Amino acid sequence: MHKTYVIGIGQIQIGEHWDKSLKEMAGEAGLLALSDANFPKIDALFIGNMMSGSANRQLHLNALIADWMGYRGNESYVFESACSSGAAAFRTGVIALGSGHFETALIIGLEKMTDSPSSEITNTLATAADADLEVDMGVSFVALNALLMRRYMYEYGWKNADFAGFSINAHANAVSNPYARFRKPISEKIFLESGMVCDPINLMDASSIGDGSAAIVVTNNKKYINEKLKISVVGSTANSDSISIQNRSDPIWLSGAEISSKNAYKQAGISADDIDVFEYHDAFSIMAALSLEACGFAERGKGPRLALDGEIRPDGRIPVATKGGLKARGHPVGATGIYQIVEVVQQLRGEAGSTQVSPNNYGMAQNIGGSGSNIITHILKRE
Amino acid sequence: MHKTYVIGIGQIQIGEHWDKSLKEMAGEAGLLALSDANFPKIDALFIGNMMSGSANRQLHLNALIADWMGYRGNESYVFESACSSGAAAFRTGVIALGSGHFETALIIGLEKMTDSPSSEITNTLATAADADLEVDMGVSFVALNALLMRRYMYEYGWKNADFAGFSINAHANAVSNPYARFRKPISEKIFLESGMVCDPINLMDASSIGDGSAAIVVTNNKKYINEKLKISVVGSTANSDSISIQNRSDPIWLSGAEISSKNAYKQAGISADDIDVFEYHDAFSIMAALSLEACGFAERGKGPRLALDGEIRPDGRIPVATKGGLKARGHPVGATGIYQIVEVVQQLRGEAGSTQVSPNNYGMAQNIGGSGSNIITHILKRE
Repeated sequence: MHKTYVIGIGQIQIGEHWDKSLKEMAGEAGLLALSDANFPKIDALFIGNMMSGSANRQLHLNALIADWMGYRGNESYVFESACSSGAAAFRTGVIALGSGHFETALIIGLEKMTDSPSSEITNTLATAADADLEVDMGVSFVALNALLMRRYMYEYGWKNADFAGFSINAHANAVSNPYARFRKPISEKIFLESGMVCDPINLMDASSIGDGSAAIVVTNNKKYINEKLKISVVGSTANSDSISIQNRSDPIWLSGAEISSKNAYKQAGISADDIDVFEYHDAFSIMAALSLEACGFAERGKGPRLALDGEIRPDGRIPVATKGGLKARGHPVGATGIYQIVEVVQQLRGEAGSTQVSPNNYGMAQNIGGSGSNIITHILKRE
Repeated sequence: MHKTYVIGIGQIQIGEHWDKSLKEMAGEAGLLALSDANFPKIDALFIGNMMSGSANRQLHLNALIADWMGYRGNESYVFESACSSGAAAFRTGVIALGSGHFETALIIGLEKMTDSPSSEITNTLATAADADLEVDMGVSFVALNALLMRRYMYEYGWKNADFAGFSINAHANAVSNPYARFRKPISEKIFLESGMVCDPINLMDASSIGDGSAAIVVTNNKKYINEKLKISVVGSTANSDSISIQNRSDPIWLSGAEISSKNAYKQAGISADDIDVFEYHDAFSIMAALSLEACGFAERGKGPRLALDGEIRPDGRIPVATKGGLKARGHPVGATGIYQIVEVVQQLRGEAGSTQVSPNNYGMAQNIGGSGSNIITHILKRE
């Protein structure tokens, strides 16, 4: 197995890009990553996207984007794994480079969600759940997470207000991130007064959709690597749980995330304590709490404690959502997994500005598809 | 790079499976392949599908199918590459096994197209073309192929009737294939009298959609290989051309297919003359002609000659569509690439019944996404 190095990153601001088409967004992020990598020869493109077929009436994004970017003749692939589509593209790229089959690849995450009515997007997000057994019963994706949060509150005695810390941290960190959708800090008062989306999930418990694209250039070719700033992929794992939460023996424990992170620590030869920054999948604040527990940063049932104690802030024990997370940076679903890894690279390079963490040797990104169904974890290291 | 062996194949009949859901279809084909392979331990699932998000309001097929089949905990990926989605999943599986990252994988092609109104399917098939530059101008996918066929007829002087041989061969071969959608032979008279779909493409020039699933088990673990019947993957390549036909310097030459097949021959250490069976992508008879030319079986502009002379029949120089092809077996788009490889394996094993070819040392399958945009070629060998 060849080792994979990240040599370029690029991202566009998450927002409502009504003036840009899918290929223009991907091309822009891709070009930024290529420029950052000093324009190496690209052997293949890996693209993560969830819903362009429904939301944009455009499939075959590999042909579309490769052609638009001047890679006619190259091979390219599109991965769909609900909200973990971005990391699925990254992981498969890492595997393909590991085989030596390719030397250098461009990996792009892309999603454009604001051109459609929000009811259509809500319906399409629900296609990540089982149509026969969940969606046809009337649940939406936020409803599934509300069930998890309600059960979690019941089991461990937390109140709504106890989840405020996750959103406050995310919004505070996004202020200095020019690529974030929301750059205003929020107070506990704003959190408590925000409207209920799906009880007990309020507007500040829920991440925002958006249009976005982020890109990464990876290589196993030593000639492309900057010897002064080597960022390598030392852990890459995926694991799964049932697609439906009702089929889990313990719905409020992310067993896929536990196994995926444990395997990633093992690959990297480290433990959770060695992680300096964790870009987690805070699609909802309940997912933030469950992720921290499953990955070994908090005891079972005590995730919110970390946020209440400020331990998730950039200067805390385990900084998370350091550029805003899904909550405030925004969650263009198929692109999110790539934004997360881009942000980990920014931290490891020491380019994270006012939310820079220290030390910054190991960073972890975890992308979750469905309500904990597909979990893909990457650990990157500054060598 | 580890070598990849095919140790199991499975398929369900293509038809209108209104009584089966997506996961049931995939599970059935997958189980047949697993049974054929003697139930090895599976490390990962690779799934090819184009349009379940639109046609079935179900995405996240990896979570859905892995869970349904009892592979909770495994990792799994879904590939979308328009009509080449099946081969994209297979090729990426071959790459992942080549890396040694996985030992054994289950690769499934799946598409369910008959639950939706046909206008919706026509619209969704068009999402394989560029929404901005082709679809919004009013072309459907059959219209793009009609433009190619008209130009081809103009350049080389062929008449509509000259394309009959492709469909007659396909339908004749499907008669004995229990998995084919259409099992009635057609005459030249039927071909000539069939209604025009999009001039000059008539109903018998066009393949049929359908619901279908096919599956393959691949391994690099020697303990799972049947030493008496070793089928290995000796060529695996992908290449691309522009997504839009108007951007090609020569629209009636499939340059992606030419390069992809040449690279595959080179990998296998053979030439086109060594191919004993070719499962080509006869979505339309013009694609059949262009594929035969691009892959070196016919001179430029002379593809229809091969069919007229009977050289594409099972006893001919280059047998194609030996189990019915896309035309008569049916074309459940994201599943087709896997059906093609399954059929090549049937031929190499000597299990192809009345359309068995001889000799049967090398078989090739070529899956095409879009109007020649993504071309994925596999050569398999009986060792």
